[in-house]
Amino acid sequence: MSGLGRVETQTAVVATPADPLRLVGGGVLSHVEVAYETYGDLAPARDNVVLVAHALTGDAHAAGHHGDPSRRGWWDNLIGPGRAVDTDRFFVVSPNLLGGCRGTTGPSSTDPATGAPYGPDFPDLHVRDLVEVHRRLLGVLGVGRLHAGVGGSLGGMQVLQWLADEPGRLDRAVLVAATSLLTAENIGFSAIAREAITSDPDYRGGRYAEAGVRPDRGLKVARMAAHLTYVSAQGLEEKYGRAGIEGYLQHQGDVFVDRFDAGSYLVLTRLLDSFDPFADPAFAPAVAGGAPRVLLISFDSDWRFGTAHSARIAEHLGAAGLAVRHHEVASPWGHDSFLLRPPGYHELVADFLVER
Amino acid sequence: MSGLGRVETQTAVVATPADPLRLVGGGVLSHVEVAYETYGDLAPARDNVVLVAHALTGDAHAAGHHGDPSRRGWWDNLIGPGRAVDTDRFFVVSPNLLGGCRGTTGPSSTDPATGAPYGPDFPDLHVRDLVEVHRRLLGVLGVGRLHAGVGGSLGGMQVLQWLADEPGRLDRAVLVAATSLLTAENIGFSAIAREAITSDPDYRGGRYAEAGVRPDRGLKVARMAAHLTYVSAQGLEEKYGRAGIEGYLQHQGDVFVDRFDAGSYLVLTRLLDSFDPFADPAFAPAVAGGAPRVLLISFDSDWRFGTAHSARIAEHLGAAGLAVRHHEVASPWGHDSFLLRPPGYHELVADFLVER
Repeated sequence: MSGLGRVETQTAVVATPADPLRLVGGGVLSHVEVAYETYGDLAPARDNVVLVAHALTGDAHAAGHHGDPSRRGWWDNLIGPGRAVDTDRFFVVSPNLLGGCRGTTGPSSTDPATGAPYGPDFPDLHVRDLVEVHRRLLGVLGVGRLHAGVGGSLGGMQVLQWLADEPGRLDRAVLVAATSLLTAENIGFSAIAREAITSDPDYRGGRYAEAGVRPDRGLKVARMAAHLTYVSAQGLEEKYGRAGIEGYLQHQGDVFVDRFDAGSYLVLTRLLDSFDPFADPAFAPAVAGGAPRVLLISFDSDWRFGTAHSARIAEHLGAAGLAVRHHEVASPWGHDSFLLRPPGYHELVADFLVER
Repeated sequence: MSGLGRVETQTAVVATPADPLRLVGGGVLSHVEVAYETYGDLAPARDNVVLVAHALTGDAHAAGHHGDPSRRGWWDNLIGPGRAVDTDRFFVVSPNLLGGCRGTTGPSSTDPATGAPYGPDFPDLHVRDLVEVHRRLLGVLGVGRLHAGVGGSLGGMQVLQWLADEPGRLDRAVLVAATSLLTAENIGFSAIAREAITSDPDYRGGRYAEAGVRPDRGLKVARMAAHLTYVSAQGLEEKYGRAGIEGYLQHQGDVFVDRFDAGSYLVLTRLLDSFDPFADPAFAPAVAGGAPRVLLISFDSDWRFGTAHSARIAEHLGAAGLAVRHHEVASPWGHDSFLLRPPGYHELVADFLVER
């Protein structure tokens, strides 16, 4: 298999007691670490940087491998030499997000004030906080302008927030299967997940780590419910069928609890549910301060953040004066299509990133 | 409010050690009680009987009230004097189903062999077993032919099974928002519900009743997940909105655990998931032995058992030679539309039941 070779996750400190991270919701984090990976080389002119933002349960390991070439990053089909995000041409920065549990500070990190994990005391986050952490990381890396920001799902929402928070800094933005406003149904699925986690007796009011337990039963159910929204009915039918679906969802839940923290799941789903940038009267004027080209891609079988969600973003950004293109790509795989390669999708991204 | 007045739930014994119920799956029940209600009067010619079959979590109390006229049966808008199922004209029999927990024998009933609740020892059921219990009830009531069988969701599936099990006995059949085969996605939601229940520490391998506990946490999550499939995205948006949805689902879950048994939920969802009557080569020939008129109604916003499900039933029954009509009714309320009154729906049922 071609693609990037071995890569490593690195860590940077982007907030300290002397330079703490002041959150939109009022919280303060006096120590923030960010896990990230980079692929390709920074051009001498520093004009070839592509920032990749990941989705709810993703991590910094987007491409290449960590030693086993058969186990590759979550967006390895998109990022690599000769691929749509061409690492022969671009310097790709892929950070883990704030609030997560894959190397960047989150609820399972140690609260310097107590010496114990934050747990339920971890403050509420806004997508702007996630962007701020990654802005600081780019500062550490010596990166100024971005050739492009690219993200799927919550990753796309972060790129959308970048357009307002750093309007002159991105030349291009790629938002795949993103949303600017969750529906009541979307939030309903989050509510089920949160109820499953917090009602697990091993949740212990969020202080499960100190008790040496984990709410794995609830987190498993949460993942099973969420996973159903990532796939399409047709995809489930074709790939697993009536007989295979229960075991498939069980497996998805089982592997998830070993790589993800329940507290992060709570913080990040609340962040998703409350995201509503266009309700902020300052958002559109801020976005209008830049002149990025924007590519929106949605998938016709995505019943989580489908075409109507991208169309809403296109409408608002277009009204703010931005050059927006929106393509609906045919795919049988639902929301998860952004991780796969339905015909035409990667070509859209590749062409958009190199067009003059 | 007009409608039926006070009604009472009654109970009949339909299986005894001398005349046990032998189940399709091989199990045997030596004592079976059925809870039921009747509305209207049996005509001297005994030719005005309408059997009403309820859905997954319904009960015998379909119409009228039990003392408080403001709290009425689950299908009170459809059944009553002058209503679509007109109790001035029809004698309506509304039984609770086998495997449930609302008066008919189910997992929470006492196993005569042990003196303790069946719990996880309650045998697997097939829709044919549910039909057999209700056939026996009609025998007790002295009812032979049925003017009609009427059911929504799992109720409609029972009526479908009646067409094969008693081909000459029903003159008309009304199947609302029914299915003959769950999709992988449908089963996925069942799988989440079962995982939530059985992973609740208070499930105790199904012996929770003997332990004096109940897996309410898991059953609540199960209900929340199921409930999302009963409503449409549009309906949620209009009725509860982004801000209200989490509290609404919480409330649905909370009230459910006080009226429903987790063991029944497991048995009945497994029964739903395995229903596949047209895969039985004997089914179509059996159905062809009768000549009932069949009315199928589906709702355009139902993403659980929507129009494609009814169309499949229509296709198979039509191929077996039955006179089948299928109407899709416009409704914003999803699967739950069968309990509500979108324009045209009740009129279709009313006309069908009285046409010559």
